[in-house]
Amino acid sequence: MALIVQKYGGTSVANLDRIRKVAKRIIRVYSAGNDVVVVLSAMAGVTDGLIQLAHQITNDPNRRELDVLLATGEQTTVSLLCIMLESMGCPAISLLGHQAEIVTDRAFGQARIVGIHATRIKELLTRRKIVAVAGFQGRDQQGNITTLGRGGSDTSAVALAAALKADVCEIYTDVDGVYTTDPNLCKDAKKLHKIAYDEMLEMASLGAKVLQIRSVEFAKKFNVPVHVRSSFKEEEGTMVVEEEEDMERLVVSSVAYSKDEARITLTRVPDRPGVASKIFTPVADAGIVVDMIIQNTRKGGLTDLTFTVPKHDYPRAMAIQKEVAKSIGAEQVLGDEHIAKVSVIGVGMRSHSGVAAKTFSSLANENINIMMISTSEIKISCVIEEKYTELAVRVLHQAFGLDSP
Amino acid sequence: MALIVQKYGGTSVANLDRIRKVAKRIIRVYSAGNDVVVVLSAMAGVTDGLIQLAHQITNDPNRRELDVLLATGEQTTVSLLCIMLESMGCPAISLLGHQAEIVTDRAFGQARIVGIHATRIKELLTRRKIVAVAGFQGRDQQGNITTLGRGGSDTSAVALAAALKADVCEIYTDVDGVYTTDPNLCKDAKKLHKIAYDEMLEMASLGAKVLQIRSVEFAKKFNVPVHVRSSFKEEEGTMVVEEEEDMERLVVSSVAYSKDEARITLTRVPDRPGVASKIFTPVADAGIVVDMIIQNTRKGGLTDLTFTVPKHDYPRAMAIQKEVAKSIGAEQVLGDEHIAKVSVIGVGMRSHSGVAAKTFSSLANENINIMMISTSEIKISCVIEEKYTELAVRVLHQAFGLDSP
Repeated sequence: MALIVQKYGGTSVANLDRIRKVAKRIIRVYSAGNDVVVVLSAMAGVTDGLIQLAHQITNDPNRRELDVLLATGEQTTVSLLCIMLESMGCPAISLLGHQAEIVTDRAFGQARIVGIHATRIKELLTRRKIVAVAGFQGRDQQGNITTLGRGGSDTSAVALAAALKADVCEIYTDVDGVYTTDPNLCKDAKKLHKIAYDEMLEMASLGAKVLQIRSVEFAKKFNVPVHVRSSFKEEEGTMVVEEEEDMERLVVSSVAYSKDEARITLTRVPDRPGVASKIFTPVADAGIVVDMIIQNTRKGGLTDLTFTVPKHDYPRAMAIQKEVAKSIGAEQVLGDEHIAKVSVIGVGMRSHSGVAAKTFSSLANENINIMMISTSEIKISCVIEEKYTELAVRVLHQAFGLDSP
Repeated sequence: MALIVQKYGGTSVANLDRIRKVAKRIIRVYSAGNDVVVVLSAMAGVTDGLIQLAHQITNDPNRRELDVLLATGEQTTVSLLCIMLESMGCPAISLLGHQAEIVTDRAFGQARIVGIHATRIKELLTRRKIVAVAGFQGRDQQGNITTLGRGGSDTSAVALAAALKADVCEIYTDVDGVYTTDPNLCKDAKKLHKIAYDEMLEMASLGAKVLQIRSVEFAKKFNVPVHVRSSFKEEEGTMVVEEEEDMERLVVSSVAYSKDEARITLTRVPDRPGVASKIFTPVADAGIVVDMIIQNTRKGGLTDLTFTVPKHDYPRAMAIQKEVAKSIGAEQVLGDEHIAKVSVIGVGMRSHSGVAAKTFSSLANENINIMMISTSEIKISCVIEEKYTELAVRVLHQAFGLDSP
């Protein structure tokens, strides 16, 4: 008998029929004697609909109030699930973020969980209740409703699993696990049986949309085994777990890609102390996150400086840099929205050399030019022209033997 | 400078355009230097839609969870209003039932307010915030979400006004005040400038749907002046206040009617001690509220017993009485769904005689047969055939001079 936290995403609870299927799955696990805590997202499309509604009023809705509005989405699904479970004869109770005492900081719209007081949930489990917790939401110290940002229900689930010391946190989604790369893009992609937290972290930050990155951070920090699987199928998915020795046999475990960034270059920047700060401080002040940065020294004390930003921040970032260029005396500001970032990831890199060389040569063989490179202990990312994305992914996937079991 | 509680009903916040109009009205009052607390209902139709959704799952949705579901309706409107107010440059903050510390008993779906801790609201008003409170909802002692039943937002508003010692509680609705009778039914109906709590209580319980009866009880108990008015017009509506001496000049202040009841008669009931208990206990156990009861003694120790129940409980009540009739040896059970109750109401009755006689003769002159009569200090109700409702209302309205200013 185990304590299992299950999280169901928006497509899994998109209508009453699907909620009924979810309820049946829960009852099966519960009836086998397990304690079950369920975390739900809003029905697919609901959160976006509410955001649009608020934006019909103003482009910049008050963040505290927007969170109050968005929190209704998960409130709806947990109550419907509990009505469903109760109608099937199963004792269930819903808890909203504040009732589950999911305490966060006050960063409305992107709050971070600072603690969970799980006493009430534990007591309810002792009484053999199925506890359905509204995902994506919490409360700050003053009792204001907060939300955790896109994909926040993953984090709610893993944080609850950590607080409850659950045996496993199952993330039910519309894909049946984590793949060596995007199966839509590469038909030879293989489902991974197991993956290390660090690899999943890199994948999440490099474009794979399976799990919210913060949920993986939580899982790693508290060593919560996470099982990513499909709510539409019975088969097992992918376990995200602590790094194990046999994982290193595979040098690269996956290939990720992202088309969500754009590139900005300032040419002939006078290379003086403090100039980087003048370039990046106004970007940071505007809340724009810079990913990769490259600086090439040129003769005459002038340098070219290139960096990437999220595509949706690109127009604002360009406007800022045009002002910056004037004030620091740079020649011009060049921008490119048509780029992609492809990455190879694997904890095996820690003990294997030659991964970078193989990556670069594989791309070169296809005449794909690498514009920027960024590396960590377990990943190599290359920025390339967007039109080569699919080709690059397939080439790298094959080069590291991910297409053969 | 006053402290004003305003409540807006579902039609007043039915869409973003109307919410914008409400926001403008609030800002006008706020900008004049008043402190404003706003109580909102859900958008028109939303609560019914959610109830239907739950009933697609089961005929008898878990009451605790249904309240969690329904509470999203008001959560949506208060957050949208605050986003609107903030976008117009007005400092606003929404509070849900539990955040406003509206504490209720645990009767899900029809909870009663047992207390309001208004400290936080007072503090927010001191900081010149417009406070928008979700109507219809509260929390019990354990923090479970509760709802107050249909029309509950009226009660939220009046209870908040009482707790805050507000100068007035304005109830904005789709009618522009309280009328001498239903204007849809009697074109000579006049808007009342002022009405006593007791009269409003009788009107609410006798079929007028302007205010939830519990809100009037609260207003009377805590002496909160209530101003019923239209959110679509500027003109003043009707003040509901403590009884004043000049109110007695008008013998009857209004005529109410209801078609929401049905009549059940048990014939030839053996008139023994305990028999009434045998008839009414199972009805009460089924949660059915009996309104009027009449018992006629007949010869031979047999009696006829007639009573009325809400129309939607009629089929259940009939089934119960057929069982009862067998067990107590009554002859038969007769039922009639086609009845109406017309009532004349006025605090002036306390000091004037002849009201009953005038009521009965006015109806008799039109050949309207009176089936049952029920009286209190300030009202006389008659059950008649349903088809005569409109005629009876007009006749009584005229007989007591309500058609002339």
